[in-house]
Amino acid sequence: MSLLVVGSVAFDALETPFGKTDKIIGGSGTYISLSASYFTKKTNLVAVVGDDFRKEDIAMMQQHGINTEGLQIKEGEKSFFWKGRYHNDMNSRDTLVTELNVLEHFDPLVPESYQDCQYLMLGNLAPAVQRTLIERLRKRPKLIMMDTMNFWMDVAWDDLMHTISMVDVLSINDAEARQLSKEYSLVKAAKKILAMGPKKLIIKKGEHGALLFDQDQIFFAPALPLEDVFDPTGAGDTFAGGFIGYLAATNDTSFSNMKRAIIYGSAMASFCVEKFGVERLVSLKQAQIDDRVQEFVDLVQFEISYA
Amino acid sequence: MSLLVVGSVAFDALETPFGKTDKIIGGSGTYISLSASYFTKKTNLVAVVGDDFRKEDIAMMQQHGINTEGLQIKEGEKSFFWKGRYHNDMNSRDTLVTELNVLEHFDPLVPESYQDCQYLMLGNLAPAVQRTLIERLRKRPKLIMMDTMNFWMDVAWDDLMHTISMVDVLSINDAEARQLSKEYSLVKAAKKILAMGPKKLIIKKGEHGALLFDQDQIFFAPALPLEDVFDPTGAGDTFAGGFIGYLAATNDTSFSNMKRAIIYGSAMASFCVEKFGVERLVSLKQAQIDDRVQEFVDLVQFEISYA
Repeated sequence: MSLLVVGSVAFDALETPFGKTDKIIGGSGTYISLSASYFTKKTNLVAVVGDDFRKEDIAMMQQHGINTEGLQIKEGEKSFFWKGRYHNDMNSRDTLVTELNVLEHFDPLVPESYQDCQYLMLGNLAPAVQRTLIERLRKRPKLIMMDTMNFWMDVAWDDLMHTISMVDVLSINDAEARQLSKEYSLVKAAKKILAMGPKKLIIKKGEHGALLFDQDQIFFAPALPLEDVFDPTGAGDTFAGGFIGYLAATNDTSFSNMKRAIIYGSAMASFCVEKFGVERLVSLKQAQIDDRVQEFVDLVQFEISYA
Repeated sequence: MSLLVVGSVAFDALETPFGKTDKIIGGSGTYISLSASYFTKKTNLVAVVGDDFRKEDIAMMQQHGINTEGLQIKEGEKSFFWKGRYHNDMNSRDTLVTELNVLEHFDPLVPESYQDCQYLMLGNLAPAVQRTLIERLRKRPKLIMMDTMNFWMDVAWDDLMHTISMVDVLSINDAEARQLSKEYSLVKAAKKILAMGPKKLIIKKGEHGALLFDQDQIFFAPALPLEDVFDPTGAGDTFAGGFIGYLAATNDTSFSNMKRAIIYGSAMASFCVEKFGVERLVSLKQAQIDDRVQEFVDLVQFEISYA
């Protein structure tokens, strides 16, 4: 089934304990659609960049089967830019520079050829922009998934609540789940957040894995224990892209298939953090993904026999 | 197979956001042996208390089939006492009072009837005391497991290294694994720690679950997502007790059986935190433990089918 991804396509400049980069391609829309492209053959991207964006980066996305018809290129404007520095533990970071540029007045136009999409992934953006995209689709997709962040809880609460009420799956991290629900216990947080509208909630815990909740069930997937996390940028978006890409490819939105999707998303995220930016993500082979998923099976598999 | 447990048997006074207690029974030896008692019929305890210790608490342990022949009662002395206050997140705590009392000069005497033990659990104590116990056993047990804490890394490094080199399984938390190995990555930390002597390493991550490492394999078990953690005191010891109790009961030290043991230990810890102190731990039924283990199966079970 076809997947529509809206999100940022941008430049990042990164500093980690392992080194630093100049401006490299980043953004939620980039990581999500690249990750999804390993599962679904039809990934339609809606995003905006300036005329400083590199043609070879767009070509790279197209080579991954990503339809860039909905990628607006604004002449005379600059792409969104984020510069950050990770601390030694890789779990905390400082934002050094944020330049909104083209993202400040982003109008998410939907090409006619995207109107048939069955799966919609709303990458992190202003919740009003995410909602505009939903409203521009003449037919509601089979599944709408949304990612967001604490920033929008601080500055756009009402907009955020409105958009959250319209989606099927919400994906946030543990600190954001606590902020959104005002509950410390993630089980209590999940109950409150599911009452806001989404039928499913994914709580991402970084190196501690991810939880999937619906009204009755909980599923937990670990993160793969790694020797080194080289660069965590984009791991959450890569996870989301693998998740929704797998759902779109299998066209099965049951809880048991979402469990598999969580594992595939976690596997994709484990590749993402092995190199800077999208470097590891652009050159994967299907066999590598299958091997990585098998590592997750081995990591958590056990057999209980009752006497 | 018979299990020998050495550890503290003590008084705790606890303050959590849910309430506070007067002096209640606590200590690593208490939690470990109570938890293990649900699996193995022969749990032999070595510990020391003062004459202020309550006879009904000793009777409670005996009712759980714990052999207290090795529990020394020092006339005219006081039991070890710890008073602590947990913060709202339940992950951090302040020690308000520590009175070593009888623990200061604890000589771990081993009754003759304990000499045949096949499984030995060294609860958190000074590493020199733990080692003395190993040395007093005429025949090396089939499996020696050791728990310790950051305090001994700070004040008794050489003793700690010596004792660690003598055990089969070491159990510590993630912060302690990082301190012991001087590595942030838990995968790297595990490699260094396994080089110190233990054949297996368990890294406890509290609400984030636990990892089991050997030279070639990693197993991960989540903690059960709970609505409320009422009192985390003793959860790590209860985990260790369930783990070694299960191993002793099944007398199988293979990696695949240790996976099951980790799940049983995690199930026992999930009960422990539901009430103050040992309250929940003293009244469990086998069916409740089996149901809880099934919750772990449901939490992590997924099926991958390759096309």
